[in-house]
Amino acid sequence: MAEKVTFNIDKEKNFSEWYTEILDKAEITDIRYNVKGFVVIRPLGAEIIEQIYQMWEAELKSKGHKPCIFPAIIPEKNFKKESSHVEGFSPDVFWLEETGEGKLALRPTSETAFYQLYSLWIRSWRDLPLKLYQRANVFRLETKATRPLIRAREFFWIESHDAFSSKEQAEAQVQEDILITENLMHQKLGIPFLPLKRPFWDKFPGAEYTIGSDVLMPDGKVIQQPSTHLLNQGFAKSFDVKFKDDKGKENYVWQTCYGPAMSRILASLIAIHGDNSGLIVPFSISPVQVIIVPIYKTENKDKIMKKAEEIKKELEKEKITAEIDDSDKKPGEKFYYWEMRGIPLRIEIGEKEIKEKLTIFLRDKKERVKGEVKDIRKLGEEMDKRLREKADKEFKKSIEDCKNKKEIEKALENKKIARCNFCSIEKQGEKCAEAIEKELGAFVRGVRHDKKEKPTGKCIICNKRANEVVYIARSY
Amino acid sequence: MAEKVTFNIDKEKNFSEWYTEILDKAEITDIRYNVKGFVVIRPLGAEIIEQIYQMWEAELKSKGHKPCIFPAIIPEKNFKKESSHVEGFSPDVFWLEETGEGKLALRPTSETAFYQLYSLWIRSWRDLPLKLYQRANVFRLETKATRPLIRAREFFWIESHDAFSSKEQAEAQVQEDILITENLMHQKLGIPFLPLKRPFWDKFPGAEYTIGSDVLMPDGKVIQQPSTHLLNQGFAKSFDVKFKDDKGKENYVWQTCYGPAMSRILASLIAIHGDNSGLIVPFSISPVQVIIVPIYKTENKDKIMKKAEEIKKELEKEKITAEIDDSDKKPGEKFYYWEMRGIPLRIEIGEKEIKEKLTIFLRDKKERVKGEVKDIRKLGEEMDKRLREKADKEFKKSIEDCKNKKEIEKALENKKIARCNFCSIEKQGEKCAEAIEKELGAFVRGVRHDKKEKPTGKCIICNKRANEVVYIARSY
Repeated sequence: MAEKVTFNIDKEKNFSEWYTEILDKAEITDIRYNVKGFVVIRPLGAEIIEQIYQMWEAELKSKGHKPCIFPAIIPEKNFKKESSHVEGFSPDVFWLEETGEGKLALRPTSETAFYQLYSLWIRSWRDLPLKLYQRANVFRLETKATRPLIRAREFFWIESHDAFSSKEQAEAQVQEDILITENLMHQKLGIPFLPLKRPFWDKFPGAEYTIGSDVLMPDGKVIQQPSTHLLNQGFAKSFDVKFKDDKGKENYVWQTCYGPAMSRILASLIAIHGDNSGLIVPFSISPVQVIIVPIYKTENKDKIMKKAEEIKKELEKEKITAEIDDSDKKPGEKFYYWEMRGIPLRIEIGEKEIKEKLTIFLRDKKERVKGEVKDIRKLGEEMDKRLREKADKEFKKSIEDCKNKKEIEKALENKKIARCNFCSIEKQGEKCAEAIEKELGAFVRGVRHDKKEKPTGKCIICNKRANEVVYIARSY
Repeated sequence: MAEKVTFNIDKEKNFSEWYTEILDKAEITDIRYNVKGFVVIRPLGAEIIEQIYQMWEAELKSKGHKPCIFPAIIPEKNFKKESSHVEGFSPDVFWLEETGEGKLALRPTSETAFYQLYSLWIRSWRDLPLKLYQRANVFRLETKATRPLIRAREFFWIESHDAFSSKEQAEAQVQEDILITENLMHQKLGIPFLPLKRPFWDKFPGAEYTIGSDVLMPDGKVIQQPSTHLLNQGFAKSFDVKFKDDKGKENYVWQTCYGPAMSRILASLIAIHGDNSGLIVPFSISPVQVIIVPIYKTENKDKIMKKAEEIKKELEKEKITAEIDDSDKKPGEKFYYWEMRGIPLRIEIGEKEIKEKLTIFLRDKKERVKGEVKDIRKLGEEMDKRLREKADKEFKKSIEDCKNKKEIEKALENKKIARCNFCSIEKQGEKCAEAIEKELGAFVRGVRHDKKEKPTGKCIICNKRANEVVYIARSY
């Protein structure tokens, strides 16, 4: 069966237009808000973001984090306490007009708000670990072109800020954060990523090191998803966050922070799973998991609607969210509407389905199968597994070993990530990275954090001994 | 048994100090954040606020509202479209430093952001009703003294913005909003309130009328809780929000908006239910519903901890959230700690409880009863009922009929709300209200919206014919 190209835009051929169009057609965002870089997130987008929030919050809580709420406004003097942090963020800050209390910023991130209080809350090893997170909107005065959900001047994230009594514990937290990303973003949402230790020149301002999660978008550009930072004792020293250990000895705490951006994860979700009929939302987080479409004529409407209501109740008993579309649209129109919005499963109920098994449409395969209410969860879970496996397969194919600039260029043209030998991701490698940026319009994204990869030859730029295997990609 | 005054501050005698102290001792907020009017909300506060959010969101969804996310930044030109709105809010607005795109505000409320998009989204009666809400932080440059959670420069609310094809439907929505407030704030959280139609001079800027929910705090000052506004067609005309009815005739939509502030509801919750041992959180929303305190010596620790774990698991099976306090504090210290934090039920497990029934401590009555896991939910629900009934009784006693200024003065001194005859809550009554404010430091809060009360005499100020029975109170 030929795939109906609802958009008249092919995702493979023209991802950028496809993405813009799907946000509009599936009613995810509205870009007509009249401030540059700010968009309105419509109900379907807001509902999915809420699901992603709840998923991360539950996971963070299960790992001993507690929620809190910090002000969205941070005094400039807090930023100034950590010199590399203020340098890194100052250009991107929205400042408030003077209110008589000194210069105030809209938070671009909240380290300098949290740690001031941490210095008051933490006294002894008994107060540690302190693991707090907040759900928050943050603001960055982006000067580059913005894209809805991808690069915006306001976005919606969780930031968790943890303090420990040893460096080992802090490093273990970094591992845990990456595992959370793996469990949720990859296993649950089916979005594969590379956990990369960022080069020295690209780490979070004020951090010892940064592990970013790079997701490859269909246009061959990577996008940074949840990143976790080993802050070590830098901020602790700037903000005087000290504790007494069990022998009464005073020391600075070791810190980490972690920041999954829900609006950006939604962007990847749309980009990775969507097709030319619209969105595909994983069953596990779809705000509506099953759409029930009754197909009736005047004479059998009551009977079929009754059946639809019954099915809905049975699904709700199984904790599956379902809706009946009883609008006066034609069945075909309803099909397209809900396919566009990515609802994973559709139950069609006509005369036949009253007597026999249900007709269940699988959004990803665009196939109908026969089944019963008790099969729905399994069908949904199987779909999520298929989505993940399909994405994994694509992703695996998209990493290409390259031996020289020409090969990198070709890989990038083919919308891939290049993997190659590189001198160093410490200060001394920065020049080579600049050459790559200048000549290829791409970035050294870092080295694998999940496994040690051994270089075998020389740096593809300077020809000196390669100490690292790096991943190079175009990026958002 | 004499009540242990944990604070050394009596709630009845000195509510203001008690409130400040409890926020600190129960670790609800930290006021040491270094921007005036902004506080940090600590985990217990954030958890309760999250519960209140989820409660309202579930209710709004069940009534056909959908979530959305609007930018926190609104251009000044949007405000200017509705003249009384801009007048009402301009003095309270935080403005951003110039970014080259005209004057931008941090939202004090979002009518002027939403309705611009409503004019794009609404075309026909088929698009109506449109009922959207968002969970949001809003900002007001308060010039009066701020109080944590009560009057702050940033607060946390839901704002719902609804558009209809007739005035009747809009008025029905106002009723529904008040019912939501009644169901959640009063029935569930046990916080009684007066639903009052505000005087003409005190309505929401741009609204036809405003119904506020006045809660009486223990110091005799009322605080406005969720308010709902019939906007009628004022904003629709300013923002050109039109629809074609089913006969093709064009008209402006009728609008309402509704705004429960979760941080402020938390303030009332603390104030109404708390006692001199700390917070009392209703069972229905307590982040921890049952705290389990094992009481052991070295020799029976394993046995008792095992029992505690069993109880916790049984409670979780009943969907009751429970925690075990296995810190190395003494039992008495644990008791005070959890009482301060208002956890509604405590299960104490010692040697005796392994063989016999459990010992269950009721936070509100500070009494121990014997029972089993299966009794817990009922005990919790009974506590919530007691909290509500106690608050209702207090509230009922706190409204006093007054025949003249002297009686009003006395009622106010006794921390009560005065009820009296008044000329008018329309424009012509404003002078009399000003006299009350000037002479008594109190405000005409409005007339009952839930029932028509008939005045029998003359206005207590101007002595002209009274058209209304009004409620007069000091206020936050």
